[in-house]
Formats: sequence, C-alpha cells, structure tokens
Amino acid sequence: MTAHDNPFAGYGGRITTQDGVYSQSEVGLANRNSGLLLETLALDITPTGLHYLLTHFDVPLIDEAEHRLTFARGFDAPFEIGLDEIRALPQVTRPVTLECAGNGRSGVSPRSHSMPWAYEAVGTSEWTGTPLKPLIERAGPKSDTVEIAFFGADYGFDKGVGHYFGRSLTLAQIAELDVTLVHFMNGQPLLPQHGAPLRIIVPGWYGMASVKWLGRIEALNTAFDGFQQVRTYRFRESDEDPGRPVTTMRVKSLMVPPGVPDWSSRKRWLRPGPVTLVGRAWSGGGVSISKVEVELDGEWREARLQPPAGAYAWSKWSCEWDASPGAHVLRCCATDALGNVQPLDPPWDVAGFANNAAQKVQVFVAEA
Amino acid sequence: MTAHDNPFAGYGGRITTQDGVYSQSEVGLANRNSGLLLETLALDITPTGLHYLLTHFDVPLIDEAEHRLTFARGFDAPFEIGLDEIRALPQVTRPVTLECAGNGRSGVSPRSHSMPWAYEAVGTSEWTGTPLKPLIERAGPKSDTVEIAFFGADYGFDKGVGHYFGRSLTLAQIAELDVTLVHFMNGQPLLPQHGAPLRIIVPGWYGMASVKWLGRIEALNTAFDGFQQVRTYRFRESDEDPGRPVTTMRVKSLMVPPGVPDWSSRKRWLRPGPVTLVGRAWSGGGVSISKVEVELDGEWREARLQPPAGAYAWSKWSCEWDASPGAHVLRCCATDALGNVQPLDPPWDVAGFANNAAQKVQVFVAEA
Repeated sequence: MTAHDNPFAGYGGRITTQDGVYSQSEVGLANRNSGLLLETLALDITPTGLHYLLTHFDVPLIDEAEHRLTFARGFDAPFEIGLDEIRALPQVTRPVTLECAGNGRSGVSPRSHSMPWAYEAVGTSEWTGTPLKPLIERAGPKSDTVEIAFFGADYGFDKGVGHYFGRSLTLAQIAELDVTLVHFMNGQPLLPQHGAPLRIIVPGWYGMASVKWLGRIEALNTAFDGFQQVRTYRFRESDEDPGRPVTTMRVKSLMVPPGVPDWSSRKRWLRPGPVTLVGRAWSGGGVSISKVEVELDGEWREARLQPPAGAYAWSKWSCEWDASPGAHVLRCCATDALGNVQPLDPPWDVAGFANNAAQKVQVFVAEA
Repeated sequence: MTAHDNPFAGYGGRITTQDGVYSQSEVGLANRNSGLLLETLALDITPTGLHYLLTHFDVPLIDEAEHRLTFARGFDAPFEIGLDEIRALPQVTRPVTLECAGNGRSGVSPRSHSMPWAYEAVGTSEWTGTPLKPLIERAGPKSDTVEIAFFGADYGFDKGVGHYFGRSLTLAQIAELDVTLVHFMNGQPLLPQHGAPLRIIVPGWYGMASVKWLGRIEALNTAFDGFQQVRTYRFRESDEDPGRPVTTMRVKSLMVPPGVPDWSSRKRWLRPGPVTLVGRAWSGGGVSISKVEVELDGEWREARLQPPAGAYAWSKWSCEWDASPGAHVLRCCATDALGNVQPLDPPWDVAGFANNAAQKVQVFVAEA
C-alpha cells in the first residue's frame, strides 16, 4: 500500500489531552469496549458477558467447523489442527484473572489518547483448553528459534500500520506460564467477542498476550517485530524512550463500592453502622497476594484474605467498617508475596499502561 | 431522608455540554454501560454478552431459589410465585429487538449530560418466558385499576431522588404488546446483568419498559408517578416542557461498517471493487420494515430486505456497492410499514431520547 492509499498514516500520534475532559474518539472507544461492573467483584467468577473486552479491530465471525490452527513457518514438522482434534487432546479448566494493560489509563496525567479505562478492565473466567507446549513440541521449532509468534484473524490499522494482531512469547515463557489453547469459557464454547473458536490464555500477564481468534503460530529466529509487540504495550518514560515490554500484571486490588449509587456520578450513599466491605486482589506471574489493607477514616486496616480459587485467580478480601455519618473516601491497597505494594498515586507511563494505583471510592453516609 | 442526608440533591440538572467534548462522568457512564459491536449486526441474534446494557444503579445479585415475584397492592387475589412455578407455566420463546431510549444521544446538539451512546445501544436476543396477562388476571386487578406498575430490586438515586427502578403499563398495553415474564435469554438462564432471575420484556418499546430484577407488581388506581415514569423517559422541547412519554421504538437502521477499522478513529479502509453492505432495520410496536435505502456516492439505492425472524425482531438488509477509490460517507435509511422514515438529521429532544437519524460511516477506499 502506498502512502497515498493510507488514510490513517497521520493518526494515533500524541494528541493533547486534558484531565477530566475527553474527545469524541475516546468516548467512541469507551462505547465500543466494555469492562466489568464493580458490584460483580463479589462473585468468584465474572458473569459471562461482563468480563472486560478490549477489541483492537473488528470481531472476526469465524466458522468453527472450517477453522484450522496452522503451525506454519519455522517448524520442522508443520501441521494444521481443527477444533475437533484440539478437543480430543487432554483438557484443563482453571480460573484465570485477566486485566487489560490499559486499565486505569484515565487516572494518569497527562493522559494518553486511547481507551480511557478507569478500574473496570479486569475479569476472572474459567477457561478450558489444552496445554500449548506439547503441540509446539509436536511441530518442532527449528533449532535457531528464539520466539514463538501468535496471530489472530483480526486485521486493522494502528498509527497508519495495517496488520493482523500478533504477539510473541519465548519457549521458556510458554512452559513457565503454562499457556493454554482455549476453546471454552465458563463451561460454554467461546463467544465470538472472546476469540471464538480458539485463543490462547497467558496466565499472569496483561491481556494483550492472550491472542484471540488464533489461526497461525510461527517459530521465529529473530525477535518478533510486529506492531503489537514493539510499537505498543511498552513502558516509556517519554516519547523518545524505546521502552520496555509490558508483561506480567502488577499487584492490584478493587472493592465493591458499598451502599447504593447515584446514577450519573456513581458516588455512593449508605446508612450509618456496620458494613462489610468486600473486594478482590491479584498480582501477576502466578505471585499470590499476601495482604490487603483498607483505608477507613484515615487509618489503614488489614482485611481478611481468602485463598484464591487457583494459582492465577484473584483473592477475595473483606473488612468490617463502622460507617459514621458524613463524606468518606475509601481506598484499598494490596501487597503480593514478593513484597510489591500498590502505589497510592498512578505510576507514570507515556501510554498510561499498568496503572495500579489504589482505587478511591467516594461515599456519603447518612445521619442516623 | 432529610435534605441534609441527601448528598445528591443538587445532581443531575442541566449541565453545560459541548459537541465532541465529554466530561469525566459521561466517560464513567460509557465505561460502565456497554453496547453491541456493530460488526455483529451480521448475525440474526446478538451474541450473548454483546446485547446492550444500560444499568441505572447496581446489578442486584439475587438468589434464584429464594426469589419470589409478588403481586402486591391493588389486586383482589394477591399472590407470590417462585421461579420453579413460573417455569411450569406455558412458555414462549421469541427474538425481540430492544434499543435503549438514549441510543444516539451523543449526536444531539446540545447534548444532554447522560450516557453518551452513539449507535450501539441495541440488540436482539431470544427471550423465553411465560405471558404476563394470565398471571395478572389470576391476581385480579381491582375494578378501579388504571395502570400496572413493575418494580425491580435495583435501588439508587437520580436527581437526588432515591427509588427502586419502576415503570408502568396499562392493562390494554400489556395485552396488546404481549408482555412476557422472562427467565431465559438465548437458551440460558438470564445473566445477572440482564435481570436475573426474572424480568419483563415489552416488545416494540424502548428498553426502559422491560424492567429487570422484577420482584413486585402492583395495580394502581391512579397513573404511576415513579421517577422513571414521570421524571425521565419523556420527550421535551425545553426544560420547562412537562413532556410526552417515550414509548415505542422509532424506525431505524444500522450497517456493518465495511472493510477494516483504524483502531482509534474507527474509520474504515477497504479495497476497491464490489462489496456487499449488510445491516439491520427495525421499528417499534410490531410495525414491520418496508424499505431500506443506502446512500452510495450521493445516490440513494434500495437494499434487498429479508423477512424478520419474528414480529418484534429486526430485518436484515443487504446492498451491493462498487467501491471506487477515495473517501466516502455511507448512510442507510429505513421506512416502516406505517410510512415512518428515518430522518437524516437528529430529531431534537432535551434529554437526547430516540435519536433515529441515519447512521454515517466514513470509509476510505484504496487505489486499485
């Protein structure tokens, strides 16, 4: 395609943003992408249809019966495999918490022009599929392989570059993270918007690694240079910074906002007296949560913590609060087993990736 | 509750808005509420999880086994009924297209401060349940009944008024519209966010009438004065106008944007040559679609129209286009069997309800 043919060549550079003021295109992205409803954090598994969805291009509508996964270039024994064959392989089901790398972007100042998530781009589903490693071994990556690349059927433009969504992992990462080739979600065939008929789940990493609508796997003898690997999903201090890749999820916690909401501001109202605050906490790379603290009336108190439903699933926490009349700002803050602690203020990143700052919930408690 | 206790008393009046510029609270609503992805308009039934969701307050998480629907005040033979009993009654399943009354709000100028929908607040699901009329008859509305009111379990504040979501219909409307008490959606139990375990579906009306999380039905001897009936969901010319109720859906059509998207602008790119444009059209109150026209290079051409899957479901349309290089704006426009035609420009309403103006899709066609 020539430059003349590319109407999007000028798109997607830095666009001036203002805190608390949003453009039509950001609202277009917010209308198109969707997150969980925070009240459903009370549930171990996010209800089907409320798991967050970040769809870069369009959802491809794929005929499952016709679909083949191709182990293509770079393998000694390339092959194709259909859904029936994949379902006949050993199956594993496990809950995995996935978070969008852009979650929290709207809290970073100055804000990057992209999907303006607040807190809602996270979810936990039960994913069913077959481990990927044995299939990679069957295809036999050539001896000079350094990375395995995964390509979806979703094609579009970003910053003027047309491409199929693609990401890569090393063989060591695939083994270590127990990457799964998934075709079921919450006991049902994958929905079109979640990658039907086939995707990978990369537990412990931000969601961009879990390629949807998977059709092609390649073994590469150089590092993958696809757009979604090198042009985005990188932590950058400034526009000139080449950046470091976004990988595992940072430690984070969220609470179910207590009481009842005001429709438009989403601020909360509740009656005075004892209330049990509940929420979830998670970290990345299979690291467990060791502590959750909740700020109540200026004092940080340790919450009760339940064991997670799986090594890659969030943990439930709860904490009693004696709500006194007046306005309050509640916060929660998690620590993981490696000693990583959520910051109270958003960490800086040019593109607003991985903002794990403590959630703030504004609450009004009525008079007795 | 006293005024002192009500922190939301000053909220939700007219707030100045600017075309194409959005506030934090509008983005908060856009992050929380979700619409369909336009590419799935190719499917007769919206995939589960992509039907639009407008949640006024919080999703109540209800124990189905404990849930009772109460025919309460105003009946001669009030009773309660559980889910098992409702499922033992005669069941009907049918596809119904529902659209949010606020769909298209972001296109109305000046814009009302609320959920800034563009085109996506619509969906068609297969709903299963039992007709409501026989149950109302069993409860026996008192002879002076003028309306039947439906109350959900969802409570919150709007414009400072705390209330359970509630709406009403007359007995004639209930009979005429074949209102159904629904517990299944697309062959599965209702999901929490769609009103589990029980809701009504009011076919042909905008979505606000289809009360979710239904727990209580009352027969009233005066017109229902609940917030969601009289303070909102009314067409108003000005702030002083008491308004006229929003009821049946207006004639409307949408197309699947052709080609592939740019991530952030959602503008489209495609190769030159023949392309089949497809979309959906619907109207309200059970009125069928008689014609869909598509504007291609300044000329309106009649699309092929397929019969709908049901009396209250959208119709599929398709139209051939020979895409020539350059920038194009495509539009589609439906006419219903009563002769109602979509306007090309948004109809005025203070709150931006029922904007059925023709969708515009910006497309760039590459050189050959």
